[in-house]
Amino acid sequence: MRQARQIKLGAFLMTDGHHIAGWRHARATANANVRPDHFLRLARIAEAAKFDAIFLSDSLGVRDTNLDSVHRTSRHVGFEPLTLLSALSVVTHNIGLIGTASTSFNEPFHVARKFASLDLLSGGRAGWNLVTSSGEEEARNFNLDHHIPHAERYDRAREFLQVVKGLWDSWEDDAFLRDKVSGTNFDPRKLHVLDHRGRHFSVRGPLNVARSPQGHPVVVQAGASEDGRDLAVASAEAIFCAHRTLAEARAFYADIKTRADRAGRNPDHVKIMPGVFPVIGRTETEAREKFEELQSLIHPAVGLQLLSTVMGVGDLTGYDLDGPLPDLPETNGPKSRQQLVLDAARRDNLTIRQLYLSIAGARGHWQVVGTAEQIADALEERFVREGADGFNIMAPHLPGGLEDFIDDVVPILRKRGLFRSEYEGTTLRENLGLPFPRQPAERSGVSSVAAE
Amino acid sequence: MRQARQIKLGAFLMTDGHHIAGWRHARATANANVRPDHFLRLARIAEAAKFDAIFLSDSLGVRDTNLDSVHRTSRHVGFEPLTLLSALSVVTHNIGLIGTASTSFNEPFHVARKFASLDLLSGGRAGWNLVTSSGEEEARNFNLDHHIPHAERYDRAREFLQVVKGLWDSWEDDAFLRDKVSGTNFDPRKLHVLDHRGRHFSVRGPLNVARSPQGHPVVVQAGASEDGRDLAVASAEAIFCAHRTLAEARAFYADIKTRADRAGRNPDHVKIMPGVFPVIGRTETEAREKFEELQSLIHPAVGLQLLSTVMGVGDLTGYDLDGPLPDLPETNGPKSRQQLVLDAARRDNLTIRQLYLSIAGARGHWQVVGTAEQIADALEERFVREGADGFNIMAPHLPGGLEDFIDDVVPILRKRGLFRSEYEGTTLRENLGLPFPRQPAERSGVSSVAAE
Repeated sequence: MRQARQIKLGAFLMTDGHHIAGWRHARATANANVRPDHFLRLARIAEAAKFDAIFLSDSLGVRDTNLDSVHRTSRHVGFEPLTLLSALSVVTHNIGLIGTASTSFNEPFHVARKFASLDLLSGGRAGWNLVTSSGEEEARNFNLDHHIPHAERYDRAREFLQVVKGLWDSWEDDAFLRDKVSGTNFDPRKLHVLDHRGRHFSVRGPLNVARSPQGHPVVVQAGASEDGRDLAVASAEAIFCAHRTLAEARAFYADIKTRADRAGRNPDHVKIMPGVFPVIGRTETEAREKFEELQSLIHPAVGLQLLSTVMGVGDLTGYDLDGPLPDLPETNGPKSRQQLVLDAARRDNLTIRQLYLSIAGARGHWQVVGTAEQIADALEERFVREGADGFNIMAPHLPGGLEDFIDDVVPILRKRGLFRSEYEGTTLRENLGLPFPRQPAERSGVSSVAAE
Repeated sequence: MRQARQIKLGAFLMTDGHHIAGWRHARATANANVRPDHFLRLARIAEAAKFDAIFLSDSLGVRDTNLDSVHRTSRHVGFEPLTLLSALSVVTHNIGLIGTASTSFNEPFHVARKFASLDLLSGGRAGWNLVTSSGEEEARNFNLDHHIPHAERYDRAREFLQVVKGLWDSWEDDAFLRDKVSGTNFDPRKLHVLDHRGRHFSVRGPLNVARSPQGHPVVVQAGASEDGRDLAVASAEAIFCAHRTLAEARAFYADIKTRADRAGRNPDHVKIMPGVFPVIGRTETEAREKFEELQSLIHPAVGLQLLSTVMGVGDLTGYDLDGPLPDLPETNGPKSRQQLVLDAARRDNLTIRQLYLSIAGARGHWQVVGTAEQIADALEERFVREGADGFNIMAPHLPGGLEDFIDDVVPILRKRGLFRSEYEGTTLRENLGLPFPRQPAERSGVSSVAAE
C-alpha cells in the first residue's frame, strides 16, 4: 500500500529566533550563540516531534557597517555549522542534520570530506545546503576586495558540486572488507580516482573518508534566481525557498517540478520546502498581540537599517520615524522588492516606522499569525494545493517558538494524517523519501577522467 | 604551595592503532574508521584516566600509489578531525581535544572559526595542531600539481597563524552584554576589525564566532626542521615530536627551551611532548612476544613499501625477502634516515625482511617494550632528565593498547606522584599549565591595520 503524501518538516534553527528582535523576547535564550545545550535541546524536541531535519544557515563574516544597528542584534556571531551539527549527531538518533556551506569560499575536497564525515557520525543523517554566498563582507575574509559576480559564482558552484559528488563516489558501497585474517582491508578494484580537471578545480581524489551510509549526503539548495533554479533542478534533492503568497508558491512549485520532469528526474525527488514564520495564540487576537510584542522590541536603529538594506539606500537616520518616507534616489539594488515596498508606502500612507515594521519579522518569508488550527489550515492548504512538499519552521524566538509549534500545531497535522507519527527510516534520505544514489556503472579501477 | 612538575599525557588516537598492522590485532576495532562509538569509548577512558588531551592527526588525501600495499592497511580513510572532535566535545567534560589542520590547504578564516567553535562547544578544551602538510597526494586535491616548497609553506604558515590569532582577538572578553531590556547585544567598542593585508592573505575580519572560553585555543606544532623550530618557539604552546633516544630528546628539549627563553617567552609555556609507542607485558618476555605478534601481521607488500618510502626508492618488489638489501642508486630523499637504515643493514647483515621489520612499529617514534614498571621507569627518566614535559601515547592497537597503558602504567606514574589524580582546571590551558592569552592593549574600536 502506498503511503499517502505527507508534509515534511524542517526546524530552521536561527540561534535565538527568526524575528530580528527575537533574542530580546522573554522566552528566548539570549546567549544561544555560545550555548551548545540550547541547540541540543532544540534538536531533541524536534526529534521527539519526528521532524525530518534541523537546518542551519551560514554566513562567513560579520556585516558590521552600521554598528549602531548591529550591536542591537544577535545575528553576527554563532557556532560554525559543521562543528555544531557534529556535536548534535551523537546525542540525536533519527533527525536529519542539514548544514550550509558556501561553494565560493571553500574547496570541494573539504566540503565533500566534512559532510561525508558528518554522515558517518550520524549514521546517515547529513545534508548539505549549497549556497554561493552573496555578501561583500564574506569576500573580504577570503582575500578578495569584492564579491564574485553572480554568473561566475554559479559556474563555480556547478563544477564544485560535480567534484563533491565525484569524491563521494570514490569508494564503492562494498569496498571495505576489513578481513583481519587475510589482511585485506579493502578491495582495490573498488577504489576510484576522480582525476577531475576543470575550469575552476583540479582535484585528483580519492576521498579519504569511507563511503557514508547515505552514499551521498542529501543536497539542498536555496537559490531562486534562474541560475539557482537550473542548478537545483539539475541536482538538488530539497529546495528551501521563500514565498509569501499561495500563488507565488504554486507557481514556483509547478515550475520546478516541470523542469525536473523535463530534465529526466522524478519530480518527487525534489522536495520543495518553503520557510514559514508562525506566531501562535490561543485566539487570533492573542496571536496578533504576541506578534506586536515582538515588533515593539525592534529598536528604530535596527528598523531603519533593515529598511535601508531593502531599499538599497545608505542611511535613513535623521528622518522623522513617524513621518512619510522621503523621495529616494534611484539605486542599483534589487528593484522588484524596492518597488513593492514603495508602492505599499504610498498606497497606505505608511510612516517610516510602519514601513520598517511591515518588512521586519519573517524576512521575506511567509508569515502566519493565528491560532494553531488556523496555522494548520494554512499549511494544509499550501501543501494540498501543491505550493509545498513541506515546510521549514522559522520560529520567531527559540526555544519557545518551536516548542509552541510542536505542542500546538504538530498534533493537529498528525490528527489529519498530514504528518508522521514515527520515522519511516533511519536515514534522512529514507525519511524524505529520496532514493539511494547509484554509483556510476562503468569506471576504471585506477582512474576516470572528468570532463575538461 | 607550588605544585611539583608533573607529566602531561596525550592520547594520540590513530584510528585502530599506531602499528601499521594494528588493525589486524584481535583487540583492535577493525572498522574503527567508520565507528564514532570507538572514538567515544577511547575519549571516555582517556578522560577517566585524567589525560590532558586526545590528539588527532590528519592528512588530506589517500597515498594510493602502491595499491598492493595500501589495500592491506587501514590508514587511508577516517573521520575529518574537526567533525569528530566536535562530536566528542558534548559527551566528554574535561579532556582536551586537539585536532590537526593544515595551513597549506586551508584559509585562516575557516581555521580560526572552526577551532573557536570547538572551543565553545567543549567549554574551553580545543587545541589546534598546526601542520604545513608534506604529501604530493594532498596538493593534487587542491588544484596543484606539485606540493608547495618547504620554505614557502613555512612563510605561509607564519602569516596564517598571525591571522588566526588576530581573528581570535576580534571580540574582547567582555564584549557581549546581551541585555534584553536595553536591547544592547554587545558593546560596539569591544569589537575589533583585523584588516590584515599580507603576502599570502587579505582578511578583514572580525570573526563571526564569539570570544571562546580559552581566548585562544591551544596552539600545537610538530615541525622538527629549523623552520619548524622557529615557528614553534615563536608561537607554539605544545610540541609533538619524535625522538628515539634520551640523548636526542634532551638535545631537542634544551634547544627549544633555550630558544624560547631567548625569544622572551616563559619556557614552561612550551610543553614538549614526544610520542611514545608502548608494548606492555606482565614480563619482559611477554611484552616482546606481543610485539613479535604484531610484527608477524605485517604483510611483505606493506613492509617493502615502508622500506621503499624510507629509502626513497621506487620499488623493492622482486628481491628475495630473506636475502640482503641490494645496492641502491642515490636518491634525493631524506639522507640521514636512509644512511642510518643502510648502516644498520650492513653492520648486522640484515635481510630485507629484518630491515623493514626494524623500521615498522613506532614509525620513527620512541618504542618501549617491557613491563609496566619498566615503561614507567623509562618515562620517568625521560621526564626527570628533561627530555620531555609529557608524552603522547601511541598505542599499537586501539582500544586495547590504550586500555593496557591506562590500567597498568598510569597507576604507577600516579603512585610516584608523577601524574595527576584530578584535573587541575576545566580548560585545556589550565590543565597544561598555560596562561590565558591577553588581548592587545591598544586597539582602535573600528579597525587596526596589521603589518604589510
